[in-house]
Amino acid sequence: MDSLSIVILAAGKGTRMYSAKPKVLHPIGGAPMLARVISTARSLNPARLVVVYGFGGEQVRQAIKDEDIVWAEQAEQLGTGHALKMALPALPSEGKTLVLYGDVPLTRSETLQQLIAAAGDGMAVLTDVLDDASGYGRMLRGADGKLKAIVEHKDCTPEQLAIREINTGMMVLPNRHLGDWLHALRNGNAQGEYYLTDVLALAVAAGIPVESASVSASWEAAGVNNKLQLAELERILQQNQARALLTAGVTLADPARIDIRGQLLHGRDVSIDVNCVFEGVVELGDNVEIGANCVLKNVKVAAGSRIAAFSHLEDAVVGADCRLGPYARLRPGAVLADEVHIGNFVEIKKSTVGLGSKVNHLTYIGDAEIGSKVNVGAGSVTCNYDGVNKFKTVIQDNVFVGSGTLMVAPVTLESGATVGAGSVISRTAPADALTVARARQVTIAGWKRPQKKS
Amino acid sequence: MDSLSIVILAAGKGTRMYSAKPKVLHPIGGAPMLARVISTARSLNPARLVVVYGFGGEQVRQAIKDEDIVWAEQAEQLGTGHALKMALPALPSEGKTLVLYGDVPLTRSETLQQLIAAAGDGMAVLTDVLDDASGYGRMLRGADGKLKAIVEHKDCTPEQLAIREINTGMMVLPNRHLGDWLHALRNGNAQGEYYLTDVLALAVAAGIPVESASVSASWEAAGVNNKLQLAELERILQQNQARALLTAGVTLADPARIDIRGQLLHGRDVSIDVNCVFEGVVELGDNVEIGANCVLKNVKVAAGSRIAAFSHLEDAVVGADCRLGPYARLRPGAVLADEVHIGNFVEIKKSTVGLGSKVNHLTYIGDAEIGSKVNVGAGSVTCNYDGVNKFKTVIQDNVFVGSGTLMVAPVTLESGATVGAGSVISRTAPADALTVARARQVTIAGWKRPQKKS
Amino acid sequence: MDSLSIVILAAGKGTRMYSAKPKVLHPIGGAPMLARVISTARSLNPARLVVVYGFGGEQVRQAIKDEDIVWAEQAEQLGTGHALKMALPALPSEGKTLVLYGDVPLTRSETLQQLIAAAGDGMAVLTDVLDDASGYGRMLRGADGKLKAIVEHKDCTPEQLAIREINTGMMVLPNRHLGDWLHALRNGNAQGEYYLTDVLALAVAAGIPVESASVSASWEAAGVNNKLQLAELERILQQNQARALLTAGVTLADPARIDIRGQLLHGRDVSIDVNCVFEGVVELGDNVEIGANCVLKNVKVAAGSRIAAFSHLEDAVVGADCRLGPYARLRPGAVLADEVHIGNFVEIKKSTVGLGSKVNHLTYIGDAEIGSKVNVGAGSVTCNYDGVNKFKTVIQDNVFVGSGTLMVAPVTLESGATVGAGSVISRTAPADALTVARARQVTIAGWKRPQKKS
Repeated sequence: MDSLSIVILAAGKGTRMYSAKPKVLHPIGGAPMLARVISTARSLNPARLVVVYGFGGEQVRQAIKDEDIVWAEQAEQLGTGHALKMALPALPSEGKTLVLYGDVPLTRSETLQQLIAAAGDGMAVLTDVLDDASGYGRMLRGADGKLKAIVEHKDCTPEQLAIREINTGMMVLPNRHLGDWLHALRNGNAQGEYYLTDVLALAVAAGIPVESASVSASWEAAGVNNKLQLAELERILQQNQARALLTAGVTLADPARIDIRGQLLHGRDVSIDVNCVFEGVVELGDNVEIGANCVLKNVKVAAGSRIAAFSHLEDAVVGADCRLGPYARLRPGAVLADEVHIGNFVEIKKSTVGLGSKVNHLTYIGDAEIGSKVNVGAGSVTCNYDGVNKFKTVIQDNVFVGSGTLMVAPVTLESGATVGAGSVISRTAPADALTVARARQVTIAGWKRPQKKS
Repeated sequence: MDSLSIVILAAGKGTRMYSAKPKVLHPIGGAPMLARVISTARSLNPARLVVVYGFGGEQVRQAIKDEDIVWAEQAEQLGTGHALKMALPALPSEGKTLVLYGDVPLTRSETLQQLIAAAGDGMAVLTDVLDDASGYGRMLRGADGKLKAIVEHKDCTPEQLAIREINTGMMVLPNRHLGDWLHALRNGNAQGEYYLTDVLALAVAAGIPVESASVSASWEAAGVNNKLQLAELERILQQNQARALLTAGVTLADPARIDIRGQLLHGRDVSIDVNCVFEGVVELGDNVEIGANCVLKNVKVAAGSRIAAFSHLEDAVVGADCRLGPYARLRPGAVLADEVHIGNFVEIKKSTVGLGSKVNHLTYIGDAEIGSKVNVGAGSVTCNYDGVNKFKTVIQDNVFVGSGTLMVAPVTLESGATVGAGSVISRTAPADALTVARARQVTIAGWKRPQKKS
Repeated sequence: MDSLSIVILAAGKGTRMYSAKPKVLHPIGGAPMLARVISTARSLNPARLVVVYGFGGEQVRQAIKDEDIVWAEQAEQLGTGHALKMALPALPSEGKTLVLYGDVPLTRSETLQQLIAAAGDGMAVLTDVLDDASGYGRMLRGADGKLKAIVEHKDCTPEQLAIREINTGMMVLPNRHLGDWLHALRNGNAQGEYYLTDVLALAVAAGIPVESASVSASWEAAGVNNKLQLAELERILQQNQARALLTAGVTLADPARIDIRGQLLHGRDVSIDVNCVFEGVVELGDNVEIGANCVLKNVKVAAGSRIAAFSHLEDAVVGADCRLGPYARLRPGAVLADEVHIGNFVEIKKSTVGLGSKVNHLTYIGDAEIGSKVNVGAGSVTCNYDGVNKFKTVIQDNVFVGSGTLMVAPVTLESGATVGAGSVISRTAPADALTVARARQVTIAGWKRPQKKS
């Protein structure tokens, strides 16, 4: 097979985005539009991947780190034909080139495969059929059904205006003709731009067959010029993802209220309540239940665990059969073993919690190693920071930490230790003993309550 | 009137649910689909209620505890006619039988009443009229408008394909013919199954009148074969419930963002903000306001109380004119009197809180009795657990609990007692006196702050 | 130009709202419907603004404080013509009068300007064109296209029933004829009411030209008679507001999941995640990011600040480049300088926090002045309340407050002071020194853990 090159046109400014960020870097599904197009392009195994950049070029190149991409600059915005010409030096003289757009983020790989197959060693254009084609370039076909030309809307005869098949802009071109065709383009139009669409007529004139393939839905070809269009495509992407999850057997309380900005891997009998947000790579084991309004980012949750409402988990690992939340917060580096309970208003940061341990209420655990079967009482805090340095707290197996205990790190609570409520522990709490640091309770008789000041 | 039997066919496996749970046990509106169909069936006051079970039979019978249900096993899945035959031994020889489906959860009682009335002492089929009837069995009517047969889609003539009236599968049959008809069914079709729909032709042949009734909307007859369909029906159910609440005068900020999984009872001038979830039985008195993103399960809230955003209430009772949240959590057994304030990051478990008392910030109250006009300061904790046993804290009327107080149960704070901030109270705090347990404040001059370690 | 009077008819009871509140006071977009109509009316710079009230008049007049409004009572509900008659004494004999409705909240100012312009010194009616006009009064036009009459649905000939142009009720009338016309109205109809629509025929009879203008969408003329319609218009309003934000360049994760009940001002590159609620006036600077499920009311957030999920901010000011949440709560009077960090489960009330200071975990700060570069440890509390009075806590620059510190106000922590974890600070903590209030840690050997009681 001919070698495949892919050129992604990504030079547009996106004035109507009203943003300091180049248009193609605006995220959809959690990733820059351009990154998504690149990812689709890679799924086609191209021999060469060229990105034509322009506005905000430095930002674009910094955001997209892929080392194998060839960057071609389009310093002036003189149209799609001109943009592709900038990529010419990077393209081989044989093989074929697929042209994609950095602001058309949702094209499916399967559709592009069909387009490439349709092209053979000629040319092929990806088309759509619209109920209302106003404004789009119409696909002109001969009596034989073959493509003859693309006519811009404003140049259409009344008869041509009735054509509903339109040009999406995506196409496959034979490299052996590409240079000639691009140099033959003229900019004698209202915008003074070089249009890539004009190559179709050049191909027909040269006797090169021009085939077509179609999108499965219009959103595959939809571009983004403003935030309204971006939001519309974001919803379509989320809806597609939700349908895929449902079809695979995940229970979603409301497919219109789930956001996946990355990858959501799942086992069997996973259930997700309304209004959850998933970012990065999230992996949910069998029988995992996620309550309403949770936010999970780069989290792995093992089988049978239940995360109650309003929990916020980030860069964390949750073992099997855990119970978290409501209002549980796991920060980066939280690693929970199996059967751990993390309750409401509890924050765990950069800490391990062992098998069956419980931290159920209003507690901050940071930079700690907690063993198994530990119970941490309400209102406890690991004092891990002295203002400049962070220190570790070690709580060994079977420790009982009374409520309101402050553990001044570095400090160790040895295996089986018990700490009385309200203690400030700044030295080792010995194994299997009771340690307290508590003032004596005294009552001041005859004391009068304060009075309301005027 | 003839006695009514109802048979619910619930033996399907639901392969495309990709679940270890039998299909009919998947929940809709918080209850298993089968439980919802049973509830609808009961609304018709049947003399007899038979459920035909098959796949996952033990799970189904354990989930549905109703003692009066007759269970009939269908060991092999040989079609709906075969399934109903399994119920025959449980049916009397007279009266009529309504056939329902465990995976068709949203049929309205009123519609089924019409179907039963239409049947008289003959037969009646529930039908629907679809814009696109593809795939469904068409209702064949004679020139007299009478039903003659049901023709499966694949057996339709071009003329019959144009028929838009389709069979929903639900029907009423006269018991006196039922045995004969079911035994007369044959499985000489592509699937090798005994189809219940074939009894219509048998009825016509026997000269038994066959009437029909219609669903008010297609969702009444919609079945669930996968999670996508389950989610679609869940949304329809929620939308119907939301409309009913609005019609009854409840203010909903967004009817598309409320989930009721059980029963929501309400007084006048109740207002519910976006994205709330209600489970079990929730009762909201006059003028109750529920803020955005709240979760309430089995909760009773008396008139005039306001629950602010992000609150999570479960198995709890809230008196009149209370102020809760944001971020208030009531756990099972929390019982609040009137005019109680529960503030942010406060958890109340198995405790009573008296008239006008306030627990406003970052506090855990468990296994406590709190009197009236009590103020519990921020960061206080009832230390109710010694690692194996739970103990009670009693805070009598007019007690002022300073911030950061730890109450080591069992312990009593007597009426009018004041506790100084930061005290650990492990013995009785006497009435009308100040009790403190606090270390002396000392300053270490010349002390140097820690330096950053490299 | 003729002077413009505007009369808003707001006397209806709204029986189907099932509410103790007059219909026109039910809120849409956070403001009473009537207030919204008044605001639209004001945008037209009327010389005179008359509100005709009836049911719940006291409540209405108390809710709408505008001093320049002329209130006209309609004691009996005898129709729209009768209602306008009540306003007659307040209207001048020259100029024109625009009639609006207190329960039609979403009419656009631009549309009403067109209506007024169309009227010239005659009359003009605002019309809509519906696919299904059932139930509405049809606009009858002559062969010359001129309006001749409004025919109620029930009085329409079959030919007239096909008319799709309908009366919205909003109209402009010439004051010089108004008195005569209103007195000429008769109530000889089924409802026994005086209909304002009948003035059109009187105008035509008098040879006064009757022009028309059209709404841009049906929601401009939609009225509210029940909570279902109120919810529908609320959603349309929210959708319109979301589209306006998107068009202006704001990134919204889901335009169907944002509620703005007031005014949302924004800079460039502002991003708002799903399910946020904005109330009152909220101002977001350049590059501000608001996480999922946040609630903001009367808040100003300066450039570059990020508010993470589940945060709740009310009557507060946030400086530039701050990091808040998740689960941060700012209560009224919280004022944060630049680069402040407020973390999870932290409540700030009526306090200032200086440049670069951090309060990251489980803390209550109330009635405090916090300087710059301060660090407040987890679980700290300002004890600002003695049961009757509130006192101030002052934490000067560069103070390090150890975790679990209780600051008993009035109290000052002087510049550079360090407070040891778990201290109760009730006197000044001197500058640049270490202050602690902590009991000695002791271990009781031989102590036995409690046993499970039976």
